[in-house]
Parts: sequence; structure tokens; C-alpha cells
Amino acid sequence: MASTNPTPDLSGTSIEWKTIEEAHERIRPRIHRTPVMTSESLNATSGAELFFKCENLQKTGSFKIRGATNAIFSLSDEEASHGVVTHSSGNHAAAVARAAAWRGIPAWIVMPRNAPAVKCRAVESYGGKITFCEPKVSARSETAKRIQAETGAAMIHPYDDDRIIAGQATAAKELLEEIPDLDAVLAPVSGGGLLSGTCLGAHGLNPEVRVYGCEPELADDAYRSLKTGTLQTMESSDTIADGLRASLAARTFAILRKQVAGILLVGEKEIVETMQLVGQRMKLVIEPSSAVALAPLLRAGGVPGLNQRVRKGKPAARIGIIISGGNV
Amino acid sequence: MASTNPTPDLSGTSIEWKTIEEAHERIRPRIHRTPVMTSESLNATSGAELFFKCENLQKTGSFKIRGATNAIFSLSDEEASHGVVTHSSGNHAAAVARAAAWRGIPAWIVMPRNAPAVKCRAVESYGGKITFCEPKVSARSETAKRIQAETGAAMIHPYDDDRIIAGQATAAKELLEEIPDLDAVLAPVSGGGLLSGTCLGAHGLNPEVRVYGCEPELADDAYRSLKTGTLQTMESSDTIADGLRASLAARTFAILRKQVAGILLVGEKEIVETMQLVGQRMKLVIEPSSAVALAPLLRAGGVPGLNQRVRKGKPAARIGIIISGGNV
Repeated sequence: MASTNPTPDLSGTSIEWKTIEEAHERIRPRIHRTPVMTSESLNATSGAELFFKCENLQKTGSFKIRGATNAIFSLSDEEASHGVVTHSSGNHAAAVARAAAWRGIPAWIVMPRNAPAVKCRAVESYGGKITFCEPKVSARSETAKRIQAETGAAMIHPYDDDRIIAGQATAAKELLEEIPDLDAVLAPVSGGGLLSGTCLGAHGLNPEVRVYGCEPELADDAYRSLKTGTLQTMESSDTIADGLRASLAARTFAILRKQVAGILLVGEKEIVETMQLVGQRMKLVIEPSSAVALAPLLRAGGVPGLNQRVRKGKPAARIGIIISGGNV
Repeated sequence: MASTNPTPDLSGTSIEWKTIEEAHERIRPRIHRTPVMTSESLNATSGAELFFKCENLQKTGSFKIRGATNAIFSLSDEEASHGVVTHSSGNHAAAVARAAAWRGIPAWIVMPRNAPAVKCRAVESYGGKITFCEPKVSARSETAKRIQAETGAAMIHPYDDDRIIAGQATAAKELLEEIPDLDAVLAPVSGGGLLSGTCLGAHGLNPEVRVYGCEPELADDAYRSLKTGTLQTMESSDTIADGLRASLAARTFAILRKQVAGILLVGEKEIVETMQLVGQRMKLVIEPSSAVALAPLLRAGGVPGLNQRVRKGKPAARIGIIISGGNV
């Protein structure tokens, strides 16, 4: 899928720019403003100027702390009084546990049985209470709803929530504040919280920038959703990119249909090779989900219309990449 | 060795502060001002406030580009006209090749046969001409001298050279400019270029700061040199810290005898565990030589007088660590 939307439609989004600015003010005292890094070597390989927004260096090791902190600190004292509950394959889980501890309220976390041990330990280290469930999207949300009914906790959905999307949007906002004249931004897509937030955060500062989602071939539901115009789901996936096994929600799909320039699919071997290359060349540990957002640019020939051969004779494209996390 | 010099003697050093400032001006346009990073998790583990000067994110992946650039851009046009020659286990080799390419002159690089392949490829990628030799200190310098005689190239010794030491000093200078009130700075020691530069760079801005060298038990020649007061050498070592197999020179030994607070020894298992921990917690790839400079602080009980239990009741020590490189 080269490009579904050459011109993003910025009208009628449910989340206004002011909401993103307020989210940023709310979370700023607690999160890192992560560095934007560059690599001469990867510029040479990709034939573009790459700007890496390093959310792997963020608190809890991923961008998820942005949305979780915004959502949990948006709750009224009454809403927060019974704690929070969520379901997540890992990074959102750790982020909710961390932000709930900052607020001083309990966090119940539903995780699939096949979640990486390192992510379970992170949740526990922040004081989160884990309940394991079957590794199916439906089992996750059913278990979370049961706990919510039992405890009265506030649900902090990992992506189908405007407070979460507005929080995730602050990563792209910071990137564009630092490098305003980007031609494109690439981010991984799973449930679409980061990608729809990236659309809103980037287009709020530069309506011309093209935002691409990147997705494993083994979990290509967002690609199929955008292609068919109908929300596609996926009950489970074996991609190594364990953070990208969820499917879009109506809320994120609506934003992406208007604003995303396209979805780029990535093979499993490319994911592993890209992780290794970033370790060698940039000395950064990135998780498989983050490698997905860089891999398309490193292919021979690159992404049509975006980098490498197609731009011969023009100045190199300036491309931002959201390095979503580093929890391996 | 807890502490040989509680009070550094800053008198009569061959390298003046002005020389270090000039080196910094000379190299600044070509090198990164690397970030100083922190980790809440490693602060908790060490019982200290740690400040990591990330030279693994430096051009060519290590601090060595500082000294090499200073030395090569200090040459007159006449001196530079026949190129440069050096011997190195890897990072200095890549740095000399890189800096020589910037200056537009050839670089002959003598490397031991057991140098890591990734470091050889780096030298070649910058256009350096490699000659392999036996993995002995004596074979390295003999081969370099032979090439020098044949080509008329200028010798850029990896550490027994004031221009190199002044260049390496700029890493600690940047660290202290950013965090002036450090109690101590730790750096790895091999030939002593980085460590003696760290003494000069740190003490130039804060004479009170204690500078410690960190060394593998399997290559403990600097420890023995400082302990005996006589320069000890080591023909070869099997430590995993491949950057730390050289021995002090008269020039670096003289600076260290006056200014270093002590040498801390580190086991091979600690080196590997520390590399892994930094990957997990900080998402940074560091090479074994760099892990050597952190490992002593992570031990149960820490370093006597420096961190953890010994400081109970006092504020946590503020400790800088020179993360020397990331080429694994």
C-alpha cells in the first residue's frame, strides 16, 4: 500500500489541538522529553535523512507512559478512588501501573499468558496486580470488564480512548517541535493509539507531513482495514513484534482513514535484522515493534515516493521515525 | 585498591588547561557533544546518583575520535602530507581512519590478528589501510614503526601522546560542564589515554572530584603499576574487554600517579552482567570496556567510601561514568 491519502483530511477530528496541548502540560512534569537522534550510517543506507524519536529512552521504556499518565491524571478524585484496570500485552500495562503508583491508586492489569516475562516483571515492580488470560483479544477485554465490575476501577483502555490518543500524540508533537520540516513520519500500528496520535500530533504542527503506519505482515489487520474501508480484526498473531498484535478500534480507525498516508507491511526477518542494525550503528536497544517502523526504509529501493532511488536528483527526504520502545 | 591519592596533585602536568580548551575548539565542529544520561533504576541498584557520559553515541562509536581528531588536525600540512600511521585493537584505529579521511590524507592502521571483525570493517569503511600483526604489544609498535619508515607517515600513538590525551580530556570536560558537583568520576583504563585525560578534564573544572580507573582483573597492569610505583606491562590478555589489553606508557603513568584516586578491578562475569543490565535498563548498547567502569558500583556494598552502605545517612554520592564506547 503506497499511499491511501495523499492529502490528509484534518476536519472534524474528535480530538482538538488544545486537548493535545493540555495533555502535554499534564504529563510534562513526569515524563522525559526524549532525544531525537540521527545516524549518518543509516542515512546512507536509507538514502534519506532520518530523525529517530527515542521513546525507548522514555520512562518505563516506551511511549505508553504518555497516554497512561494523561488518562490517569485526567480522572477526578471520585473516578480514581477505586483504582484503574486495563488489559495489555505489556508496555501499556507497565505504564498504567507506573502512572497509578504516581497517583497513589491501585492498578489491576490483565495480561495475556504469552506476554514477555520482562514486561510482567516491570508491571510487578511498579506495584501492578496482574491477572493472566488467554492470548486472545476477546479474552483480554472480557477479563478486564469482569475485574472492573468487581472493583469499580476506572477502565484505561490501551488505545480506544481519547485521553490515551491525546497523550500518545505528544511524542510526534515533540518531534515536530524539534524538526518542523519533515516530509514524513513513520510509526508502528497495532490498536492505532500511537499512529492516530502521531497523525494528530504531526498534522497539528505541519499539515503537509505524510504519516505512515508500519505493521508486521503476520498482523496486517490495519493494512486490510484501510484497504477495504471496513474495520478488520485479528484474534491472535505470532509476529515477533509482541506489541503489535491488537487490532484497530472504531475510534482509531476513524482518525487513520482521514489522516494516514498509507500502511507499510514488514516481514519477520526484516524486523530482526533491523533491531540488530540499530544496535550496531546507533548503540540503541529497540524492541521488535519499533524495528517495524524503520525496516521499510532500509529495503533496496526503499519506499516508493519516500526515500532512495525514486528521489534521485532531489534533496534527500527528511523522515521522522517513532522508536516506540526498548523492552526486549 | 581503595584510594592511593586522596588529594590529587595538580602541579607540573605537561598538559595545561589551555591545551585542553584548544583541543576542544579544534574538534568541536566534527564530533558530537554526547548526552549525559541517567537511570532511576541503576541509581536504586547502586545507591548513588549516576551520570553516564555516553561516548558510545559518539562518532565512530567511541571517545577515541576526540583524541584522533585533535592529533590529526594539529599536524602541519607538511607533517600531514605523508599520511598517518597507528596501531590499535580497534576503536582508535577506526577513529584515526575517520579523522584522516576528514583531513583527506591516507591512514595506515596496524591491528592485532584477534581484533573484532566489526572493528576491522569500521576501519575499512573509513578508507583505512589495515596491516595485521601478532596480538602482542611489542608486535604492534614494531609493525607501525616499520610502516612509518617506509611511508614517512606521522605516528598517531593511541595514548602516549599529549595531543591524544588532551583530546580524550574533552569528554570529562563536557561532563563536568554539565554536572559540576560530582563526587567522583569512573573511567576504564588500558593505556591510560582516557583515564589521564579524564583526570585532567575533571580536575580542571573541579579539583575536588575523585577520579577512579577501572580495569579487568585479567589485565591488571595499571593496578599493579600504581600499587608498586613502577610501570608494569602485560604482553597479552584474554579479557573480554578487548579495548583494555594495552599497558600504561610513561606519560600516562606520570599523570595517573599524581591525579588518580585509585584503580578498581572487575571480574569477567561482572563485565558481561553489567553490559546486559545497561541494555535492559537504559536501552543502550555498551562495549565490555565500558561495562568495566560501571560494574564496581553495582556490587553488593558498592565501592568503599564511594557508594551504597558506607554513605548511609549522608546524601547519595554523585558519580560520573565515562561510557567509553558501544562497538560490540
